[in-house]
Amino acid sequence: MIMLFFENDYSEGCCPEVLEALVKTNLEPLTPYGSDIYTQRAKEKILAACGCPEGDVFLLVGGTQTNKTVIDAVLKKYEGVVSADTGHIAQHEAGAIESAGHKVLTVPHVDGKLPAKDLEALLKTFYDDANHDHMVFPGMVYISHPTEFGTLYTAQELKALADVCKAYDLPLYLDGARLGYGLAAGAATLREIAQYCDVFYIGGTKVGALCGEAVVFTKANAPRQFITTVKQNGALLAKGRLVGVQFDRLFTDGLYEKISENAIILAEKLKKALKEKGYRFFIDSPTNQIFVILENGFMEQLGQQVRFSFWQRFDEKHTVIRFATSWATREEDVDALIGLL
Amino acid sequence: MIMLFFENDYSEGCCPEVLEALVKTNLEPLTPYGSDIYTQRAKEKILAACGCPEGDVFLLVGGTQTNKTVIDAVLKKYEGVVSADTGHIAQHEAGAIESAGHKVLTVPHVDGKLPAKDLEALLKTFYDDANHDHMVFPGMVYISHPTEFGTLYTAQELKALADVCKAYDLPLYLDGARLGYGLAAGAATLREIAQYCDVFYIGGTKVGALCGEAVVFTKANAPRQFITTVKQNGALLAKGRLVGVQFDRLFTDGLYEKISENAIILAEKLKKALKEKGYRFFIDSPTNQIFVILENGFMEQLGQQVRFSFWQRFDEKHTVIRFATSWATREEDVDALIGLL
Amino acid sequence: MIMLFFENDYSEGCCPEVLEALVKTNLEPLTPYGSDIYTQRAKEKILAACGCPEGDVFLLVGGTQTNKTVIDAVLKKYEGVVSADTGHIAQHEAGAIESAGHKVLTVPHVDGKLPAKDLEALLKTFYDDANHDHMVFPGMVYISHPTEFGTLYTAQELKALADVCKAYDLPLYLDGARLGYGLAAGAATLREIAQYCDVFYIGGTKVGALCGEAVVFTKANAPRQFITTVKQNGALLAKGRLVGVQFDRLFTDGLYEKISENAIILAEKLKKALKEKGYRFFIDSPTNQIFVILENGFMEQLGQQVRFSFWQRFDEKHTVIRFATSWATREEDVDALIGLL
Amino acid sequence: MIMLFFENDYSEGCCPEVLEALVKTNLEPLTPYGSDIYTQRAKEKILAACGCPEGDVFLLVGGTQTNKTVIDAVLKKYEGVVSADTGHIAQHEAGAIESAGHKVLTVPHVDGKLPAKDLEALLKTFYDDANHDHMVFPGMVYISHPTEFGTLYTAQELKALADVCKAYDLPLYLDGARLGYGLAAGAATLREIAQYCDVFYIGGTKVGALCGEAVVFTKANAPRQFITTVKQNGALLAKGRLVGVQFDRLFTDGLYEKISENAIILAEKLKKALKEKGYRFFIDSPTNQIFVILENGFMEQLGQQVRFSFWQRFDEKHTVIRFATSWATREEDVDALIGLL
Repeated sequence: MIMLFFENDYSEGCCPEVLEALVKTNLEPLTPYGSDIYTQRAKEKILAACGCPEGDVFLLVGGTQTNKTVIDAVLKKYEGVVSADTGHIAQHEAGAIESAGHKVLTVPHVDGKLPAKDLEALLKTFYDDANHDHMVFPGMVYISHPTEFGTLYTAQELKALADVCKAYDLPLYLDGARLGYGLAAGAATLREIAQYCDVFYIGGTKVGALCGEAVVFTKANAPRQFITTVKQNGALLAKGRLVGVQFDRLFTDGLYEKISENAIILAEKLKKALKEKGYRFFIDSPTNQIFVILENGFMEQLGQQVRFSFWQRFDEKHTVIRFATSWATREEDVDALIGLL
Repeated sequence: MIMLFFENDYSEGCCPEVLEALVKTNLEPLTPYGSDIYTQRAKEKILAACGCPEGDVFLLVGGTQTNKTVIDAVLKKYEGVVSADTGHIAQHEAGAIESAGHKVLTVPHVDGKLPAKDLEALLKTFYDDANHDHMVFPGMVYISHPTEFGTLYTAQELKALADVCKAYDLPLYLDGARLGYGLAAGAATLREIAQYCDVFYIGGTKVGALCGEAVVFTKANAPRQFITTVKQNGALLAKGRLVGVQFDRLFTDGLYEKISENAIILAEKLKKALKEKGYRFFIDSPTNQIFVILENGFMEQLGQQVRFSFWQRFDEKHTVIRFATSWATREEDVDALIGLL
Repeated sequence: MIMLFFENDYSEGCCPEVLEALVKTNLEPLTPYGSDIYTQRAKEKILAACGCPEGDVFLLVGGTQTNKTVIDAVLKKYEGVVSADTGHIAQHEAGAIESAGHKVLTVPHVDGKLPAKDLEALLKTFYDDANHDHMVFPGMVYISHPTEFGTLYTAQELKALADVCKAYDLPLYLDGARLGYGLAAGAATLREIAQYCDVFYIGGTKVGALCGEAVVFTKANAPRQFITTVKQNGALLAKGRLVGVQFDRLFTDGLYEKISENAIILAEKLKKALKEKGYRFFIDSPTNQIFVILENGFMEQLGQQVRFSFWQRFDEKHTVIRFATSWATREEDVDALIGLL
Repeated sequence: MIMLFFENDYSEGCCPEVLEALVKTNLEPLTPYGSDIYTQRAKEKILAACGCPEGDVFLLVGGTQTNKTVIDAVLKKYEGVVSADTGHIAQHEAGAIESAGHKVLTVPHVDGKLPAKDLEALLKTFYDDANHDHMVFPGMVYISHPTEFGTLYTAQELKALADVCKAYDLPLYLDGARLGYGLAAGAATLREIAQYCDVFYIGGTKVGALCGEAVVFTKANAPRQFITTVKQNGALLAKGRLVGVQFDRLFTDGLYEKISENAIILAEKLKKALKEKGYRFFIDSPTNQIFVILENGFMEQLGQQVRFSFWQRFDEKHTVIRFATSWATREEDVDALIGLL
């Protein structure tokens, strides 16, 4: 019996084109620590795609590391970072932000998102409090896009957040671990994201690369000596080429968006089938993560042929599970999964 | 004109056998965060090679990250780490250890090494000081092997350090960023290192891998929840396979030692030629880093055809430079370099 | 017009008996850093009062400092501290805990308290989560007593918390910034607190001293080299006598409890009068902090003769304010205040 | 037999005038956290004495705490602080600076001091190093005055340091734990210190106060929200009055300098007698710390009537000890000591 894999979007290695680029360049001697030609090209291509030529790009290795390093570099020591309470940094990064000395100031999420008006309320309350000198200052705003629930901010929602941030002189930071899938789903373009955010990262690990995340400071606003902070955080690869070559390829010929589309098209097909078969969704996600409520008995039976993620208990008899598609998902596997539902 | 590369041991990607393993396994769906079968196999093979079946192995990504994570996990908050003043953690890690809250307590090096008797003197002086409650407690000992000068500890020297450490109840930690080259040069075996050290890492980045360092806790002494500390330090790859597959291959059929030998054989050839031609060495290194004193005019001329590392000014008219060989160095390039000397 | 002071419990210096002790001992030459005879006597008297002769006492300077130092010393680096969301460490310590690297894991408060069953639920949920290796481990439990709302844990409630803590092998830490007022109000005795808590502190700053908090590790469980952690946190006074003399006096002839009673007796008198006059209370506090809801116009008028704390907006027309009594409050001032209500 | 106390300059409480001020103000209700009138007056008087009306003053509690808080607030995360290797922060603060994330970059001392030319050499070497992005950036310069050996910088030496700092855009920070004694010895005036330093602190603990250090930012250059950093570091007293009243009094009628003179006059008398009796000095200190080399047998005998500090072993038969005078030293005790020598 073949097992079908819908557990997450990081089960396979990298997409074939990226692998080919790694193979092709493997024995070229290159200069270290991101000074190589492929990294330089990747940066140029990324800035071009973002429409911010005055920006700056740094290639790091993984998501938690990127969040920790960016937040650590941007915040002053008496500041914390505002996040929806479901934000990855608030839940699943083992205290990485706090280990760098900073509090995560949480706001209750709405569908995994941080609403602009709730952000504004938090900021107003903070500055209205006569004792705020004794409290953690909000120093930047963190959002994930897609969120941990697969939901997306529209361009208008991003603009609203950016407006609040501007009014309070706070940088807006977007965690794009799954950015490709967000772009493919169409809520906001890469240029809109670059316009509204002060810094964001383009996820490679979950979107076609073996590893690697591209941090974009969009407005000539990279922190002084960011490279040293990257090194201090253990995020500077001697062989910077490893990530440089991958992002150079991902941002050539629209590959990053092309492979992301595969995940969205197949997620849509799967969602359509689930709807038709009458399954209930836990949340309505437009991207590659599908949260479905299954009856426990059926869940166990399905688990013998399909790998999916346990998400949370729904009630006595039901469980929320997650199916994830990715750049690597094959249509035949989606069809097979639909056949089992 | 062809450029010859002797600048460092991380100019190329990975060795062909490792690349082949990555290519071969690329589309296999695997479980994440180091729970995959290749990582498991790599750990078993490494423990077998070390002769410490009761040990524990963790695969991290890069050297600074590994040093920071291990030291952070082992030290109590009021403790620091003892190191030769030339130690990588004391000089070239951008304050990574201090950013985790710990002082590096330095001892003047002897040929890049930390002599056991100087370590003992530091510890005795510390505990004899009536005010030592107001000082940073020595909490572990860091050595690099090979050192930053390419020198090696003999098994006897490691034992002497281990004896001092045991007497003061301090773990001995060995930074093996270039361990393969040290093993190939023969001063101490992997089993001896595993016997005398409480924790050490086997360098992948500089010895045949694209990235990756294998931390070995040798005596069932991994810190509680080390995996969480790894995550907190941004060192846990979602695609743990990336390092797992590489180390699995490196520790199959003696590949790690085989490719390391290439670097040593060619370094020996180059050193022999340098000696015969009357060049002065800055330090006598038995491994893959060769430190030579060049007349400045000749250095500049040579630099037009050969890439090497500037090390330090020697005097008005001379400079210390470093040639590095690696698993990737070709004998024909060594011959060409010798021809230019 | 005389101003009446009910703003807080730290408006005056120290109680006369403590001042007298400071004056009397002022020119005695004493050994530094808490090695003096008064500090030693204070420790012995405190341990006797707590009924835990095998315990250990350390004298620190202020509350935030004490919380930071104790939590920093007790937690492992991958752990956080559980607190009610109204806990002082979660709100009003400027991120001190996070600056030491630790997350505050919050639980919604019930009357300012952390219910044992909610603590247990958090712990169960944590260990049930398959991904808890990626999350902040609960490493200790923080409660304040009296709480930030002036409420108290009963001995039974403390026991229930202690039972949960024991089941999960977590130390229970009690912040007693206002402990004297809690003891005088009678919910739990000092010996019960010492029995159920692994560590707690006896507040001096708010209860009769110029400064100073006495940390009690109740069960021979002081962290190794706690004195060095105290020094590292800038909490070790060269003139340890300053706090030593004060606590020596406070714990002589039951002074600490005697002066605390004054605050409680007068708070009771004030509360009785408020009730009789029909005022609404925001919360029912048995200690020296009284939270009353005032009509805004009356609040402003009263503010011209009485200093109190603005607490929070209640509704369009009403505000929650706090009256605090203390060891220094005079009955004539309470009578005068009642006259104005 | 009466014991004579020359062990340190923090054996007694506070000077009588300061005690009187504390007693006199003790029951006045005052606003908290340094917002009281005495603290305000102290700040004004200190700025006037320093001749920098545009400056800013903050009152903290102790020396290590002050060093940690100031350095933490001034440095960026990738920066370290330059200090002579004998600097208090480099030796006797239990890693406080590192616990805040920063390396102490040491320069070999000359008579306890950091020579401007050695500072300049370190900075030049750093920026000349092609790899300095991987190293800890020098972010501020720390000196102590008097130094740990009781020596002083002349105004010219301070100017030379300030010039180097200006050239490299680094703040110069002076630790004045014993500043009064330095001022009384006359090498540089308070105004010169305020002119050449960007920030310094005026020690209270060792110069007449029970506790307290006054941090002066001399040029409208206090870090943003420094008060919040002070709170975060546990250095903000609820009863700010405790330090405010003391510094208000110390800076009234030249009391700070007057009481400091006592220490210098008596130290001079003692040094003169020691010289006449042929004792060898370990270092020539112009302030209140006298480092003498004693024959071991005599040292033990003397120790039965005099308390002094053991400093370090000199040779087989001799030891370096320290006599310290202070504001509290009585001439009759100095005479008695001289009689014993």
